[in-house]
Amino acid sequence: MRAELIMIGTELLLGEVVDTNASFLAQRLAKLGVDLYYKSTVGDNLKRSKSVLETALKRSDVVIISGGLGPTDDDLTRELVSLVAGRPLVEDEQALEEIISWFKLRYGDTVQIPAHNRKQASFPQGSKILANSVGTAPGFWLEVGGNIVVALPGVPGELKTMFIDCVEPLLGSKSDGLRLFSKNLNFVGLGESRLEEILQDLLLEQTNPTLALYAVGGKVRLRITAKAPSETKAQSLIEPLVASIHERTRGYLYGFDDQTLEQVIGLQLNHTKQTLATAESCTGGLVSHLITNVPGCSEYFLRGYVVYSNEAKQEDLGVPKDIVDQYGAVSAETARAMAEGVRTKSGSDFGLALTGIAGPSGGSAEKPVGLVYISLATPGDTIVQRHLWRGCREQIKHRSALAALQLLWQQNPAIN
Amino acid sequence: MRAELIMIGTELLLGEVVDTNASFLAQRLAKLGVDLYYKSTVGDNLKRSKSVLETALKRSDVVIISGGLGPTDDDLTRELVSLVAGRPLVEDEQALEEIISWFKLRYGDTVQIPAHNRKQASFPQGSKILANSVGTAPGFWLEVGGNIVVALPGVPGELKTMFIDCVEPLLGSKSDGLRLFSKNLNFVGLGESRLEEILQDLLLEQTNPTLALYAVGGKVRLRITAKAPSETKAQSLIEPLVASIHERTRGYLYGFDDQTLEQVIGLQLNHTKQTLATAESCTGGLVSHLITNVPGCSEYFLRGYVVYSNEAKQEDLGVPKDIVDQYGAVSAETARAMAEGVRTKSGSDFGLALTGIAGPSGGSAEKPVGLVYISLATPGDTIVQRHLWRGCREQIKHRSALAALQLLWQQNPAIN
Repeated sequence: MRAELIMIGTELLLGEVVDTNASFLAQRLAKLGVDLYYKSTVGDNLKRSKSVLETALKRSDVVIISGGLGPTDDDLTRELVSLVAGRPLVEDEQALEEIISWFKLRYGDTVQIPAHNRKQASFPQGSKILANSVGTAPGFWLEVGGNIVVALPGVPGELKTMFIDCVEPLLGSKSDGLRLFSKNLNFVGLGESRLEEILQDLLLEQTNPTLALYAVGGKVRLRITAKAPSETKAQSLIEPLVASIHERTRGYLYGFDDQTLEQVIGLQLNHTKQTLATAESCTGGLVSHLITNVPGCSEYFLRGYVVYSNEAKQEDLGVPKDIVDQYGAVSAETARAMAEGVRTKSGSDFGLALTGIAGPSGGSAEKPVGLVYISLATPGDTIVQRHLWRGCREQIKHRSALAALQLLWQQNPAIN
Repeated sequence: MRAELIMIGTELLLGEVVDTNASFLAQRLAKLGVDLYYKSTVGDNLKRSKSVLETALKRSDVVIISGGLGPTDDDLTRELVSLVAGRPLVEDEQALEEIISWFKLRYGDTVQIPAHNRKQASFPQGSKILANSVGTAPGFWLEVGGNIVVALPGVPGELKTMFIDCVEPLLGSKSDGLRLFSKNLNFVGLGESRLEEILQDLLLEQTNPTLALYAVGGKVRLRITAKAPSETKAQSLIEPLVASIHERTRGYLYGFDDQTLEQVIGLQLNHTKQTLATAESCTGGLVSHLITNVPGCSEYFLRGYVVYSNEAKQEDLGVPKDIVDQYGAVSAETARAMAEGVRTKSGSDFGLALTGIAGPSGGSAEKPVGLVYISLATPGDTIVQRHLWRGCREQIKHRSALAALQLLWQQNPAIN
């Protein structure tokens, strides 16, 4: 089966938005074994999008359209498909009900549904309506003349949910033969080229499964892809390779697929029944934000302190004034006192602390922008690390938070 | 002048790479006043890219190709343009010299130039060669039958440098003198369709400047674009419109262009010399993370508490145990006590607090997932808001944080 993507939106042609929907859809199609040969982007213009859709239908079996399902006048995907497929727009009662109840839930029973939003309940005749569980705009699936047209909302969260929940099962039932199965291995604390060296022989030998390395936001990911008639057969090709790679990369391979480092830490702490508290200066709450992205984190995450001022470090964490005065707020000694202080104060098993200079100002020759101390107080001892990061303020915050999570994870790296 | 982009690379169709070149080129073209109506992505395949380039040359004056200039076998942009334009490939002596000297500089005088890299010195006959100051692959500019074809390397750093240094001056000399100037207006707390209603007459009347609305991550953006011979002339078209829109949307229009809500809050607090402290439950530190993304925030942000456990709410913020027992941790009363508690504890002017149920578990019929209370304690009084969000855990955290920042900003919305 051959698919093609059409991304609709003038904003995509003005460069105001980086198109992440396209790469998401491309990845998911690859997993389903659906070939993707073309992707087109066109503005909110009926004439131009019509010519693009007509071309696409001539050369591809499935055309997936993203965007143009919103309530405003320039949202024209419904009209576009109606026009090209020769199917009139018909209002769907159930879709209308759902839009109304969404508005009532949000704004109360007396809300007036904007007329604009009502048009979101109309679809080309014969469409299968794709429910939107996280927004107002439903999508649709229309089979016409041997082709399939799928229309999805452009909001990334809505597109992803709808594609996975509604479109993949429908596409799966249409495809045949060999499929691609992938497993991603996630690493932290190893650079892409170092990992390439470690795995060089495997990378050279690859046929089926294939291997591909990517660096993503300070972490490195290895994708193993097998082509096989069934998932079981694919697993039998992938798993021995995973075991061999794990053997070579202990302490760095932290998880699989979409697993995040903070999720793996959650599994560890749940398993050992240990608890955590954080004390952050330069990261400003980013570490606790990541930790609390994991459902159920209240089982092990007790509390966090964002101690931006020196008073807060002393009052909330009991960091001795002498230490800050003698060594400075950004020092190994202060980091250690913060980690031990937050552990004692909260009664947690682990106290994780960061202090540093995120910049762009506040640096000096001796303590430059990017200097960050991370400390972990454990039931046994207290570890302190010194890092010097490059990059802008947000990158320094991000890298620091990741290194702090890595330090915590490495206390018990056996559980992936 | 009408331009079109062709992005070449199988990796772009596998979703392994998010295409940032396209948004860069789109932005630069918009600034130059060059219209961009189409963008296509195609794999490293001569037959398919040939059909895409032929279509593009029929409908656009300038076709900009990104990628396929590397040294490997699947880099085929030189062959593609040669084939479609009917111009044979010719080796350029100076380009070859430059490739050789680049290799010598990097690997020493005795290096053997790989045969593959030599092909990077060949170009379709008649091309103007575009020097690559940061890599090996030169680009080229070819005028053929009234069209211009520009080929640029796919490596983002190389593409950007080459486009700015070489292509923009050439394009500038071809265009009609009119350029596009944009100003973006950023709104919070108003839905896209509500804003469309408020601005309906302006949206209907638009010719120059034009108006376009977008929803981005819970906020709404309006772009005003004027076509004019100079920036001064464009400003004189844009500014009266901005004033009129501001008049209609006071309390919701918080900033311009890339300004974030947290930056505007920073400007406000710096201006009024007031300070802030935060107390977060469901958002887990996201609010303080956003606040501390702003350089210089230590002037006004004193500290934050992530009070996940009830003990932390009582110990750190002095929330009375009675209140939590009687009304629950997620209640208007607890939110108010948290906001007032963090304000007193830290000695700040503003205390901003959130408590809610981010899910996916922990909800009940009475207090469902998505229920969030936000409270702001000010020098005058304390405000409490109740919200009910839909979406996944991360969306609920994000929307809550945004609403909290909005509440804080609205204390003094005159300063944008």
